[in-house]
Amino acid sequence: MRAGIIGTGLIGRGWATAFARAGWSVSLWDHAPGAAALALSSVKMALDDMASVGLVADPSAAAARIRVSDTLPDALQDTDYVQESVPEDAEIKRGVFELLDRYAPAGVPIGSSSSSIVGSRFLSEIPGRDRCIVAHPANPPHLMPVVEVAPSLWHDEAFVAEVCGLLASIGQVPVVVRKEIEGFVMNRLQTAVVNEAVALVARGVIDPADLDAVMKHSLGLRWALMGPFETMDLNAPNGFLDYATRYGHLYQSMGRDLHVGEAWPDDALRTIEDSRRQETPRAEVGERMRWRDRALMRLMSLKDKL
Amino acid sequence: MRAGIIGTGLIGRGWATAFARAGWSVSLWDHAPGAAALALSSVKMALDDMASVGLVADPSAAAARIRVSDTLPDALQDTDYVQESVPEDAEIKRGVFELLDRYAPAGVPIGSSSSSIVGSRFLSEIPGRDRCIVAHPANPPHLMPVVEVAPSLWHDEAFVAEVCGLLASIGQVPVVVRKEIEGFVMNRLQTAVVNEAVALVARGVIDPADLDAVMKHSLGLRWALMGPFETMDLNAPNGFLDYATRYGHLYQSMGRDLHVGEAWPDDALRTIEDSRRQETPRAEVGERMRWRDRALMRLMSLKDKL
Repeated sequence: MRAGIIGTGLIGRGWATAFARAGWSVSLWDHAPGAAALALSSVKMALDDMASVGLVADPSAAAARIRVSDTLPDALQDTDYVQESVPEDAEIKRGVFELLDRYAPAGVPIGSSSSSIVGSRFLSEIPGRDRCIVAHPANPPHLMPVVEVAPSLWHDEAFVAEVCGLLASIGQVPVVVRKEIEGFVMNRLQTAVVNEAVALVARGVIDPADLDAVMKHSLGLRWALMGPFETMDLNAPNGFLDYATRYGHLYQSMGRDLHVGEAWPDDALRTIEDSRRQETPRAEVGERMRWRDRALMRLMSLKDKL
Repeated sequence: MRAGIIGTGLIGRGWATAFARAGWSVSLWDHAPGAAALALSSVKMALDDMASVGLVADPSAAAARIRVSDTLPDALQDTDYVQESVPEDAEIKRGVFELLDRYAPAGVPIGSSSSSIVGSRFLSEIPGRDRCIVAHPANPPHLMPVVEVAPSLWHDEAFVAEVCGLLASIGQVPVVVRKEIEGFVMNRLQTAVVNEAVALVARGVIDPADLDAVMKHSLGLRWALMGPFETMDLNAPNGFLDYATRYGHLYQSMGRDLHVGEAWPDDALRTIEDSRRQETPRAEVGERMRWRDRALMRLMSLKDKL
């Protein structure tokens, strides 16, 4: 099986890593000359890192299955699946999808990594729109396996199931977002947290570093293992409905008091930036990013064992 | 050092485990006859479980430091810190704090596990209110170490620092919530996620099990390692402010579209309950709760190593 990876920024590289790890061949193409070759070396490092925690058996063999393509038609040749990860701009995506639909083999599904733009805004006029669908990954895709498969009105259930099956076969976790909605699900949940967090700092309720501590030393630990509904289900003697009956009024009262719809005040953003630079000086950011990726791999490996 | 644990439900037991693990002696007292003795056996199991992943060196010695008290004054004798974990009801807490303040040794701080009621609603008329303060843990406290220390207007900085220092000395992670606000910080962030999640199910956007999958296979993985601000800081080339400039408009547009202030529709709650029972039948819930606690221990142990 061969995946065509179109656009080789952070997201495209993660997709390439995920497909290569799963035993697929991969073709890389990027609009910018030299970008795909650069991406290949980054993917090789990711495969080596994953091998070091037991997540890839043979990283050299996986890397050897990846080729860099100089032209878009070449990258699409002999593919069984194509994933677009170009910039988050409806016009750019529409232009790229016209080419992808023209050159990809007949019948091959083409996924878009769109993280907030709904499919009907850039796919509805593509001749082969039936095979073009939003398949939004987390960032980076090879370390956070969820993919939001978000059909548009013209897609049928069989095609959605085909794409989900393909993604599941490489170890990703597809979920179906059944209605076109801004931000799909993942980014809406993230926005709810981030906007309230910024508002709490803006009001002087908590320091930025302490807010981060609340997440990583409480809520985040549980959410790494189970989602909000299972969390609630296990936190009342008789399950989710029991929990909702006991505590629903608190959530609803608190919900009306949240500030998630407010703009981000400039001085709060500056306070957060200053706090971040105290915690992680600019010179150490690269190292911290590598720490994060290795930590995510260790976490992935732990979850495999649990 | 001795901690007096007042109220021995899930939260009180977790506090007892955390103090005993840190080498403290612990006195347990509960209003209901026999409850504290029952709690002790549960704490012993938790200490054994933690020992099995290397989080407690000598669980028998830790357990031997815990005693069950038949009377409240006995439980408070010779304590260096007292933690109240009685039901979430301002009247009940006020009554208990009158007794705690009367019988606890002079100068000993008394923390309240209040999870949403602000301190001024039940502490302002306690004679020794200067030493009584909200210290809200996550649930369970011994597996999720954050404690929200939430002073009221009458508390001075030195006392807040003393309580934070004491909690940090037993391995918890104290954060200061500087203003009295409903739900403090942790439960506001949780509410933001839960309310949006319920609304998305209510609108038919996503199935409950898939919503949980989005959290545990993407956002939750990262949030177990770093909070939302550090996440953003590491996701743009030039840090948090750069991220805010690039993506702030998306968060603010999405934020205005969130449904966190809406009531929970009954049919959505029923859909979620049905989904939970499909995923985890009633008979398997107890086993799943033990899985969760053991998984949290493994995660805690991994984070210690990272």
